[in-house]
Amino acid sequence: MADDEYIFVKPEEIEKESFRIIGEELDREGIKLKPEEEPYIKRCIHTSADFSYAKTLTFTENATAVLEDLIRDGASVICDTQMALAGINKSGLKKYGCEAHCFMSDQRIREIAKKEGITRAAASMEAAAHLEGKKIFAIGNAPTALLKLDLLHCEQGFNPDFIIGVPVGFVNAAYSKDLILKTKIPCIVNRGRKGGSNIAACLVNAALKHIGQSK
Amino acid sequence: MADDEYIFVKPEEIEKESFRIIGEELDREGIKLKPEEEPYIKRCIHTSADFSYAKTLTFTENATAVLEDLIRDGASVICDTQMALAGINKSGLKKYGCEAHCFMSDQRIREIAKKEGITRAAASMEAAAHLEGKKIFAIGNAPTALLKLDLLHCEQGFNPDFIIGVPVGFVNAAYSKDLILKTKIPCIVNRGRKGGSNIAACLVNAALKHIGQSK
Repeated sequence: MADDEYIFVKPEEIEKESFRIIGEELDREGIKLKPEEEPYIKRCIHTSADFSYAKTLTFTENATAVLEDLIRDGASVICDTQMALAGINKSGLKKYGCEAHCFMSDQRIREIAKKEGITRAAASMEAAAHLEGKKIFAIGNAPTALLKLDLLHCEQGFNPDFIIGVPVGFVNAAYSKDLILKTKIPCIVNRGRKGGSNIAACLVNAALKHIGQSK
Repeated sequence: MADDEYIFVKPEEIEKESFRIIGEELDREGIKLKPEEEPYIKRCIHTSADFSYAKTLTFTENATAVLEDLIRDGASVICDTQMALAGINKSGLKKYGCEAHCFMSDQRIREIAKKEGITRAAASMEAAAHLEGKKIFAIGNAPTALLKLDLLHCEQGFNPDFIIGVPVGFVNAAYSKDLILKTKIPCIVNRGRKGGSNIAACLVNAALKHIGQSK
C-alpha cells in the first residue's frame, strides 16, 4: 500500500499494524533476522522508520538474554540524556525493581565537567560507575560517554554489566561504538553514525516488552 | 576523514565541528539549501545523522520567520510526547515567555481517549486547542495528532498558529503530513515516514538558536 493513503486502524492496533508492515517489508527485501534479535531490530525500525538498523544493529553473543536477565535482577539503567530517560518505560522497569537515572542536569556534574574539561556526559559516566548494584548504560547521544566508559574499563577495571551503545553523530560516534565492540562488555551497538536518545530508550523498552511476552 | 578514526575535539567545539562536517558533506553532494531553512535542516541531520532530511523537510512560505516570531511573542508549544518535551530547550523558551506542554500522561486525557476510542495523542490535541494565546504544535510521534488537528481545522475552524509535523511511522505518518501541507497552516513537515520526538524537539531548538544568533 502506498504511504500516502489513509489506513483505518483502531488506536490499540496501530503498533501491531506497524510491526506487521515492518515484517512485510523486511520479508520483501529478503532480510532474515535472528529470532532473539528480531523484536529489538523491529522496534528500532518502528521508532525511526529507518530500515538501516536491520544491517547495523550489532549484538554480542547472547546479548538480549544478558540484558533481559539484568532487568529481571533489578539493574539500574543509566542514560546520557533526559530525552532517553523520558522515553524509557519507567513503570515497566519498576516492576522488576529497576531504576532509571540521568545525571546530566546535576549541578555537581556540570562542575566536574567544567573543571576537568570533559563533557557532562563523560562526567556522568564517572558518577554512574559508583552506583551500587548491576548497571545497564543506555547511551543514545554522546560518543564521549562511550569513550569514558571504555577508559574506565581499560584503565580502572570498571565493568559495566551491559552497554546499549547508540550515540548519534559526526564526531567519534562510529569510532566510540567500534571501541565498545572491541571490549568483552556485553552490548548492543549500532555501528556507524546513526542512533539517538529515542533508539536508546526503545532498546530498553524492547527488552521490557520481550520479558513481558515470555513470562 | 573516515568515521572510525578518533578526532580530538574540545567539549565546547563538538557541535561546531559536527555542523562543519555536515556542511562539508552537503557541499560534496552538491546540495544547496535555502539560507533561512539551512540551520533547521542541518540541525535535523545533526540529530539523526540522516541526510535524507535535506530532501524531505518541507517548509511553507516564510515558515521559519513565522515560527521565530511566534516564539518571540511567547506562544505555547504543545508536544505529543514527554520525550519531545524533555528534549526542548525549556529555559530558552522561557526567556520569551513561552511555555511547553505535553498532556499525554494526564488522567483526563486517558479517560477521554478511552471513552471516544481515539488515541491519547488525538485527545491531547483537542485539549490543547483550548489553551489561551498563540500555539505551536510540535508533533514528533503520533500521526493521529496531525489527523486530529486537520479535523479540528476543517470541521471546527480551529487555526493552529504553527505546526511542526514530523511524526514517524508506518500507519498514516506520510498521509497525515501530506494532509497538513494541503491546509493553509504555516508549518514545517517532514514528508514520508521519517521524523520523531527528537526531530520535533530539535526543530523548536533550531528556532531558538536562530533567534539567539540574529538578535
